[in-house]
Amino acid sequence: MHISKAHPRYRSLVTREMMAREVKAGIVSPSGLIAHGRGEAFDYLLGEKTIEHARVSEGAAAALLLSAKRPVISVNGNTAALCSKGIVKLAKVSGSKIEVNLFHRTEERIELVVAFMEKAGGKGVLGRNQDARLPGIASDRALCERQGVFSADVVLVPLEDGDRAEALVKAGKKVIVVDLNPLSRSSRAATITIVDEVTRAIPNVIEATSLLGDAKQRRRVLAAYDNSTNLAKTIRFMSARLESLAEEGKG
Amino acid sequence: MHISKAHPRYRSLVTREMMAREVKAGIVSPSGLIAHGRGEAFDYLLGEKTIEHARVSEGAAAALLLSAKRPVISVNGNTAALCSKGIVKLAKVSGSKIEVNLFHRTEERIELVVAFMEKAGGKGVLGRNQDARLPGIASDRALCERQGVFSADVVLVPLEDGDRAEALVKAGKKVIVVDLNPLSRSSRAATITIVDEVTRAIPNVIEATSLLGDAKQRRRVLAAYDNSTNLAKTIRFMSARLESLAEEGKG
Repeated sequence: MHISKAHPRYRSLVTREMMAREVKAGIVSPSGLIAHGRGEAFDYLLGEKTIEHARVSEGAAAALLLSAKRPVISVNGNTAALCSKGIVKLAKVSGSKIEVNLFHRTEERIELVVAFMEKAGGKGVLGRNQDARLPGIASDRALCERQGVFSADVVLVPLEDGDRAEALVKAGKKVIVVDLNPLSRSSRAATITIVDEVTRAIPNVIEATSLLGDAKQRRRVLAAYDNSTNLAKTIRFMSARLESLAEEGKG
Repeated sequence: MHISKAHPRYRSLVTREMMAREVKAGIVSPSGLIAHGRGEAFDYLLGEKTIEHARVSEGAAAALLLSAKRPVISVNGNTAALCSKGIVKLAKVSGSKIEVNLFHRTEERIELVVAFMEKAGGKGVLGRNQDARLPGIASDRALCERQGVFSADVVLVPLEDGDRAEALVKAGKKVIVVDLNPLSRSSRAATITIVDEVTRAIPNVIEATSLLGDAKQRRRVLAAYDNSTNLAKTIRFMSARLESLAEEGKG
C-alpha cells in the first residue's frame, strides 16, 4: 500500500508495513505484531521521544554492559526486524555476544533470525545450538546456549516476555530490558528497565558507552541508579502527559 | 502453542492466538494485529473492564442507533474476528444494516469477511458491490455501497481508522466509534466515542437498546451526552490509574 508522507502517522505506518512484510519473511511472528502495537500505544504516551528517565536507564545500561564479564544481547524477531544493525554495533562496542531467542520458537525461525543478524554484520551469532535450559520455564523458551545466555552475567533483552525476564533474574543474572510498557512484568523484574522505543534506545546506549570508559565512573553511575524509582517517575510522566492531553482535547 | 490457564495474561493470550489464526485465514490483516496490540495497551489502562464513562457512551450509542433512519454498522477484519455474532445481534435489535469495509482492501478479503459475517448469521451483509465513494479519501478506502454507508445517517464503526472516521463525519453522518484509544483521531472526530474493548462494548450497547424503547427517553439521553467531556473524563481515568499503579509499584 502506498503511504503518503503527509499522513500524520507516516513514520509508524511505514514501520508497520515493514513489520508486516517481516511476518511474511518469517522473521516476525504474528504475535510479535500485536506486541509491536502495544509498544506503539505506550510510545504515544511518551510523546514518541526519549524521555529524561529513559536517558538515565540508558546510561546505567551502558555502564552495566561495560562492567560485565560475559554480557549477552538476546535478540528476538521484533528486535531483529527493528534494529539488527544497532544490535550488531552495540555488541561490538560493549564486547557482548548476540544470541537469538524466540518466543514462538521453531528451528526454521531460529535459523532465519540468526541468518538475518549475520547479514546485518553480526559475528558468532548464537542460537543455532541451544544446549542448555533456563530453570523455571517449562516450554521451549527455556532453551539457550551454554556459552551464551546460560553462562552470562548480564543479559540485555530488548522486547522480552515477562516469564523469561523473571527466569533470567531468578537465575542470578543482571537483566536489562527495553520495554515501552513500564507496568509489564519484564519491566518490574529487570535490574535496569529502559522505557524507550528500541530504535531510539539502542543508539542511545551505544552513545553512552563512549562516555563511560572509566571503571570508577561506571560504578558511580550504577550506584546512583534505582530501577523502581525510575519506573515510578516514568509512569508519572505518562500519567501527566495523559492529563495534559485531556486538557488539550477540551480546548 | 499451548497456553496455560494459570498464565496471568491467559485471556489476552488466547485472543492473540485466535487473531493470529485469522491472519492466516485472511480475515485479519497483519496491520490489524498491530492495531489490536495498541488496543490491548489502552485496555490495560482501563483495567480491562467497562468504565462508567464507557457505559454512558454505550447508552448514547444505543439511543442514536434506535433513533436513526438508516443506521449501518461498518465491519472490518478485526471486528469480524473479535465479535461477529455480537454485531449480527446488534444489527437485528437496532434495525441496522451491516457493511464490510476494509483498510487493507482486496476483492478477496471483502468476500472472505462478508462470508464470515454471513456465517455468523448476518442477513443481507453489504460490501460486495461497493458502487459509491466517500468524498475526502483518495484511496480505495473511500469505497462503500450506495444503499449502505453512503446513504446512512448513523454509522457505527468499531475499530475504525482516523481518515475514514473524519470523512464520515464530513459527509454529514453521525458516527459512533468503538476505540480503546481516547486520543485517536477517530475518537476525537466521532459523534459518540465508546472507549471500551469491542467484545464488551457491543453486548453493552445491545443491553442498552432494550432499555431505550421510548423515543422521548432516547432524546433525553442524547441531549445529555457530550462527547468531548466524556473523552476528557476517560483520559483522566487512565491518567489516575497510571498514577495509582506508580504508587503500587513503589510499595
